[in-house]
Amino acid sequence: MPFVNIRITKEEISSDQKRRLIEGVTKLLQDVLGKNPATTFVIIDEVETDNWGIAGEQVTTKRKREAKS
Amino acid sequence: MPFVNIRITKEEISSDQKRRLIEGVTKLLQDVLGKNPATTFVIIDEVETDNWGIAGEQVTTKRKREAKS
Amino acid sequence: MPFVNIRITKEEISSDQKRRLIEGVTKLLQDVLGKNPATTFVIIDEVETDNWGIAGEQVTTKRKREAKS
Amino acid sequence: MPFVNIRITKEEISSDQKRRLIEGVTKLLQDVLGKNPATTFVIIDEVETDNWGIAGEQVTTKRKREAKS
Amino acid sequence: MPFVNIRITKEEISSDQKRRLIEGVTKLLQDVLGKNPATTFVIIDEVETDNWGIAGEQVTTKRKREAKS
Amino acid sequence: MPFVNIRITKEEISSDQKRRLIEGVTKLLQDVLGKNPATTFVIIDEVETDNWGIAGEQVTTKRKREAKS
Repeated sequence: MPFVNIRITKEEISSDQKRRLIEGVTKLLQDVLGKNPATTFVIIDEVETDNWGIAGEQVTTKRKREAKS
Repeated sequence: MPFVNIRITKEEISSDQKRRLIEGVTKLLQDVLGKNPATTFVIIDEVETDNWGIAGEQVTTKRKREAKS
Repeated sequence: MPFVNIRITKEEISSDQKRRLIEGVTKLLQDVLGKNPATTFVIIDEVETDNWGIAGEQVTTKRKREAKS
Repeated sequence: MPFVNIRITKEEISSDQKRRLIEGVTKLLQDVLGKNPATTFVIIDEVETDNWGIAGEQVTTKRKREAKS
Repeated sequence: MPFVNIRITKEEISSDQKRRLIEGVTKLLQDVLGKNPATTFVIIDEVETDNWGIAGEQVTTKRKREAKS
Repeated sequence: MPFVNIRITKEEISSDQKRRLIEGVTKLLQDVLGKNPATTFVIIDEVETDNWGIAGEQVTTKRKREAKS
């Protein structure tokens, strides 16, 4: 009965991409650990780029800087 | 000082239902473990049905399938 | 299919108390939101008192201070 | 490679305040534990006041009560 | 820069199985969303079966019941 | 009433370092957002290096590789 939480930045992810993540993670847990898909939960959290920091910087700022270069 | 995180699908939950969840969990922790309600935190996360997977399937898809049958 | 995470300090909680927390939360979600117990997950995390801070202080320190007074 | 999750009530936090939180936490982990900022993640979750409970009460209700007094 | 948290019951998982989970999830995020592996974090939490509930029952109890049948 | 969860690899962190993290984060939330320390929670999770992956690799493996070079 695994529980998986995937946190990614909120940047135009389609419903189909979410479906593929959910299917893929569920299959992985079945393949590696023999976990029953029926009781495998996957939750995807999409986080605003203003609310995610890496290297002490908001992803919003990072994206702008990268777009310029 | 317990911290409780309740994650449910985002499907028309009223403010009053949230109040009952918060009251109920806080009381449960007081009854079972003697925890002080003053420092009991409860956070409810409502998750889009597209972002929640069970049995390798998005809840959105599951709900549609169930509505048909 | 709710997911509940209860975080408490690690201080001699019995298996029976854990059972009562799991039963109580599962029943609460059924009563308030009609959620199916079969797909309700509850995870209890017990956190070392050195690793939990409140009011800028470790719970270990707080407990010692309270024991003296 | 620390991961920090800050959860606060959703109450008009500016992008600049988020930036200061991200910078501050990243610097703290570098100062105290020598952690590399390049692989330090910080995620800020803003939670609706209806969805956050303290002392068995929704923060929305608490805020209204406090505004009256 | 995805962050993935896999929570499973603590039941004799080998280091090699953990490696396969980490590799698999990282690859999945690269394949589906084009995420850079260099900044993909995966954390596996192993939870005592006494501390995990499903259907209002501790997994410890569920395992014993299943072993009998 | 902020809730902060700091996740780091389990690698000989002293109680005093934990105290400094808890104090620092609590002060940061007071300075930036005016949050009341009395209801600020900080939880530190120490994660086994076998259970933490970055760039598709266990931190245990990464540490060994780095030690050699």
